Amino acid sequence: MVSNRRTGRRPGDTRTREQIVAAARGSFAANGYDGTTMRGVAAAAGVDAALLHYFFGTKDGLFAAVMDVPVSPSRVADDVIAGGVDGMGDRLARRFLQVWDDPVSGPALVGMIRGATSHEPSAELIRDFVGREILGRIAATLDRPDAALRANLCGAQLMGTALLRYVLRAEPLASTPAEVVAAWLGPTLQRYLTGDPPDRTVG
Amino acid sequence: MVSNRRTGRRPGDTRTREQIVAAARGSFAANGYDGTTMRGVAAAAGVDAALLHYFFGTKDGLFAAVMDVPVSPSRVADDVIAGGVDGMGDRLARRFLQVWDDPVSGPALVGMIRGATSHEPSAELIRDFVGREILGRIAATLDRPDAALRANLCGAQLMGTALLRYVLRAEPLASTPAEVVAAWLGPTLQRYLTGDPPDRTVG
Repeated sequence: MVSNRRTGRRPGDTRTREQIVAAARGSFAANGYDGTTMRGVAAAAGVDAALLHYFFGTKDGLFAAVMDVPVSPSRVADDVIAGGVDGMGDRLARRFLQVWDDPVSGPALVGMIRGATSHEPSAELIRDFVGREILGRIAATLDRPDAALRANLCGAQLMGTALLRYVLRAEPLASTPAEVVAAWLGPTLQRYLTGDPPDRTVG
Repeated sequence: MVSNRRTGRRPGDTRTREQIVAAARGSFAANGYDGTTMRGVAAAAGVDAALLHYFFGTKDGLFAAVMDVPVSPSRVADDVIAGGVDGMGDRLARRFLQVWDDPVSGPALVGMIRGATSHEPSAELIRDFVGREILGRIAATLDRPDAALRANLCGAQLMGTALLRYVLRAEPLASTPAEVVAAWLGPTLQRYLTGDPPDRTVG
């Protein structure tokens, strides 16, 4: 038997984990991302809340498990933030494309974006989760009064890229190497994150 | 009886027009945008092809009628192109937001983007149509070897904005005045259309 990194894995662990993921899936669908709590999912799965933390860490780890995404998206945010303000746009573009180009997480995310536009609960999920846990956290570190709008603008560029490159497979974008796409997107994201706000409006 | 701008409108015109739109809807769904021809739709509707040109002008006008969008999207492209290269990004951003903020065309387009991500035929439609008829035509006037990729990058920024602002209604983007959003997007689109390609790639 493969041993867990903290304790020996018990025979019932896989089934317990599956029960929790199933309960979480139901809660995210019914209550949205914000309305789902670790305690509520634990109760629905009939297990102790400590077990959820043991298996998934935090709520975003639980969400990643439900979405079958191997990397916790808040770790993407941590990596982008850790490198500092310089080159933040480039790192965000590169990390984002990496996750979507991945043969495991990519298809899971395509399913997520399809659901997000056709079902309201998924729409709330993706809006709250991607917006808050990834872009919101990055923008918050920059200490700008309009951080939320800046996060939205980055989100628009990135979600649109995902839509065209991975869902609609628009050419030549779909087959352009990730490093070329990242080099185009990086300065856009950098301006949205750290550039001066437009000093005039387009009339 | 309201008279048509070219000939007196005949009593059968409304029904004939509806028959053509129904036949076109079927053809776009089954064959995609590229696979649909005016001649094929005319045959399916049991009318002469000249009647399609009389009612709808070109294929993109027929598509706009099927999508129930009041303005032919190729006219948006014409307007953006007509003003010349300077400020093209600003004009594209402004015109795009205008069409989506419109109480008639906006909801029709939200329906289109929802369908585009969940059904393959709609996905092909939106990719071929928005890509070719609007952004492709704009980028083609700029005579760059990478015009198609530039059009895709603009499309990614604009479709992502539509997704977040109008479909997912992410705040604060959804309630930010259009002129502020256009002022943020304009320089991005201008760089994608006319800026130098990145001289290095992000590793």
